[in-house]
Amino acid sequence: MRIAIDVMGGDNAPDAILDGALDALDLLAAEDQLVLVGDRAVIEDVVAERGLQGDSRIVIDATTQVIEMSDSPVTAIRAKPDSSIVRIAKLGGRRGLTGDADHCQVIISAGNTGAMVAAAQMSMRRLPGVHRPGIAIVLPTFHGPVVLCDVGANPEPRATHLHQYGQMAAGYAEKMIGIDNPRVALLSIGSEEAKGNSLVKEASVFMKNDPTINYVGFAEGRDLFDGKADVVISEGFTGNVVLKLAEGLAAGLFKTIAAEILVHDPELAARFEPVVKSIYKKHDYHE
Amino acid sequence: MRIAIDVMGGDNAPDAILDGALDALDLLAAEDQLVLVGDRAVIEDVVAERGLQGDSRIVIDATTQVIEMSDSPVTAIRAKPDSSIVRIAKLGGRRGLTGDADHCQVIISAGNTGAMVAAAQMSMRRLPGVHRPGIAIVLPTFHGPVVLCDVGANPEPRATHLHQYGQMAAGYAEKMIGIDNPRVALLSIGSEEAKGNSLVKEASVFMKNDPTINYVGFAEGRDLFDGKADVVISEGFTGNVVLKLAEGLAAGLFKTIAAEILVHDPELAARFEPVVKSIYKKHDYHE
Repeated sequence: MRIAIDVMGGDNAPDAILDGALDALDLLAAEDQLVLVGDRAVIEDVVAERGLQGDSRIVIDATTQVIEMSDSPVTAIRAKPDSSIVRIAKLGGRRGLTGDADHCQVIISAGNTGAMVAAAQMSMRRLPGVHRPGIAIVLPTFHGPVVLCDVGANPEPRATHLHQYGQMAAGYAEKMIGIDNPRVALLSIGSEEAKGNSLVKEASVFMKNDPTINYVGFAEGRDLFDGKADVVISEGFTGNVVLKLAEGLAAGLFKTIAAEILVHDPELAARFEPVVKSIYKKHDYHE
Repeated sequence: MRIAIDVMGGDNAPDAILDGALDALDLLAAEDQLVLVGDRAVIEDVVAERGLQGDSRIVIDATTQVIEMSDSPVTAIRAKPDSSIVRIAKLGGRRGLTGDADHCQVIISAGNTGAMVAAAQMSMRRLPGVHRPGIAIVLPTFHGPVVLCDVGANPEPRATHLHQYGQMAAGYAEKMIGIDNPRVALLSIGSEEAKGNSLVKEASVFMKNDPTINYVGFAEGRDLFDGKADVVISEGFTGNVVLKLAEGLAAGLFKTIAAEILVHDPELAARFEPVVKSIYKKHDYHE
């Protein structure tokens, strides 16, 4: 298997990305290849520092341009054809960059999401029947993982797009997380059919009439965390707000608790720390 | 001042509502009136139980119908003209129910939100220049209160509605919470102007061109809790999802922490309880 990694994108790139990629070598088989895409000198330096020059699984695919987080996605992929994001999208394309030998089965980027989605759409195409890409994430909840899709690829979707997200995200929940016959809900503002906006009402009809989806109706914001559904479908605008809100609120709440503990019972702080660490370990995919 | 209270609506109504209303008598002046709207027999029973029959500030305004939480708002206010929600909306109208003597300066209901908004709109009208009502809530955050509007009155607003919510919510933050020159943000999916959907982009132009608003740009989901703005404006669909998500996530997180503490360090649980209680007391308006 060939795995391409965008070394230039994401928080603390390229160092953090390179460190993580090289740490993962232990998990790869002898015939696998780790294709590091980015600034050649930087990559060579870090590979040499770690004494990995001789590892034949490491392949450097040099690029000279970088798409920044603040770049406008569509403009950036046109203006920076020699960027790591455009390159890994090409490597992920069915015929690779120059032919089948180049093709990577896995591409990974922590960079500009919009640019990655746009580049992927251009070079990798979509599966037959899929009209728009969506971004799915797995939310850790008290009742188990919940797949939330879309969290920002498509802020103004049609109802048919939401329907397809339901099919794709259910497939992901089943194949990747191992949830049998996952329950699919549409994110809305009430469980009653009369509530919501015209988009979710229309999408709900598509879902209901699709025998391949185990559709359980509307889910409200609170239902995301109460085990009502395994898959929650949203348009990308609300989904993105939800994702960032959940991150911000969880971080803020832990901060609030920490501050309150220090006021009430400073000695408690030391004993509370392993509890928080254990929760983070279970629920934070960043670790 | 005349204060009308819908005794029939909300969790644990009518008992919890009546208890709270009568508890508040201590805060009222001798010339104030507490207008209890709902089932006469129920109200008379509770008033008698508490020995308050002689209190001239208590006025019973009897109704015979109840709008349930599950009722469709517009249908319900037509089908149930003698409901407590329709009655208090009339009492709040400029001329009261039967003339100026009836008019209540304050009306309070914890019942069906959609029905209350629809009834209020019908009987109380809107301020001149206000096109649509919005529901504002005050979110407790680590950095202080944040006014979020709209959380569900208007799930498919126009950009002009969002602009007006900005003006009204800023006024609320200034006059009711005492925030000087409150910073107003639009909830979106990135701080860059190019991000978001067409609604927020259009609303952003209105906000920017309005010298009466201290507009600070787009806020992402996480910014709700990091002190970036005092007022956050959203269309009612996303705002409602955000509100319920925040409630659900906070409750879920406290549950997770409690469960984790019991596993790690059961003795810690007892010492952690006052910390949680103190946080709830500071941040939970339900108490």
